[in-house]
Amino acid sequence: MFYELTVVQNSKMLQNLSAILAKSTAFAESKKIDVEVLLNARLAPDQFNLMRQVQIACDSAKLGVARLTDKVDSAPKHADDETTLAELQQRITDTVAYLATFTEADFANAATQRISQPRWEGKYLHGQEFLIQHIMPNVYFHISTAYAILRHNGVEVGKKDYLGAMPYKA
Amino acid sequence: MFYELTVVQNSKMLQNLSAILAKSTAFAESKKIDVEVLLNARLAPDQFNLMRQVQIACDSAKLGVARLTDKVDSAPKHADDETTLAELQQRITDTVAYLATFTEADFANAATQRISQPRWEGKYLHGQEFLIQHIMPNVYFHISTAYAILRHNGVEVGKKDYLGAMPYKA
Repeated sequence: MFYELTVVQNSKMLQNLSAILAKSTAFAESKKIDVEVLLNARLAPDQFNLMRQVQIACDSAKLGVARLTDKVDSAPKHADDETTLAELQQRITDTVAYLATFTEADFANAATQRISQPRWEGKYLHGQEFLIQHIMPNVYFHISTAYAILRHNGVEVGKKDYLGAMPYKA
Repeated sequence: MFYELTVVQNSKMLQNLSAILAKSTAFAESKKIDVEVLLNARLAPDQFNLMRQVQIACDSAKLGVARLTDKVDSAPKHADDETTLAELQQRITDTVAYLATFTEADFANAATQRISQPRWEGKYLHGQEFLIQHIMPNVYFHISTAYAILRHNGVEVGKKDYLGAMPYKA
């Protein structure tokens, strides 16, 4: 289920986030403000702003699959230098395109892969722990926070925008 | 992985939420306000308040496992009539205790189980779709939103409180 949880579902969630951000453009136009005002919005003075929330959501998804499949060295680098909504949308597009380069077979050893990060100072998690307790709560946290910042600023978004379409069967 | 994702991880996340809520008690005392002021806080006038966010997080976790294991009829009912933080904390405790009644074997047929809800008007999802595209994004959404409401109101919580302890190995 690693592939479905990381590649398929995180791609869906990032595309939902992209559609939510697109709504902020129409909102900014109606308020006669630059949409970049919203990109700098935050819910507390010491919280990352909307721009940074989106960047981290993208990186959590990107580095999640890169680490689970032991391909960190070949993962695309992002300088976090976006300044416009168009650039931020491109960051999402690039991340989804990167996720699409993976197949189910790439995750054959993911569950038991030893995962580490520089800030963990040599400690590690097994891949399944990393997936369930790190990647997924982080991706959802930053997408939900981006949503909350826009919601708080008056952009008309609802939970359906966040969840996206469901594959209902009749 | 159904058991780990729904029982184990959602229990962890609800316990993290409980610890976050506990921090709001100390915050309210320092501000000389009733903690229930925070339970009524929201980020937008037409958003559910903190109390409701916690109730829905609990129900998403509870009904998620109940539906995946075809045990909805025997799931505990909650009237959503909490008015105090202590009652809300008890709701979380009860939900975690309910999740603990399940074992891995209960999820043997979960992936292909047909899942429906009254509001879906007869349509259904397969269990794996329901798990990945419905339960998990919903649980994380409502816990992240509860966190965001407290963060916006000045309660000193950080992402470590949200993620909880990691099972790092040396």
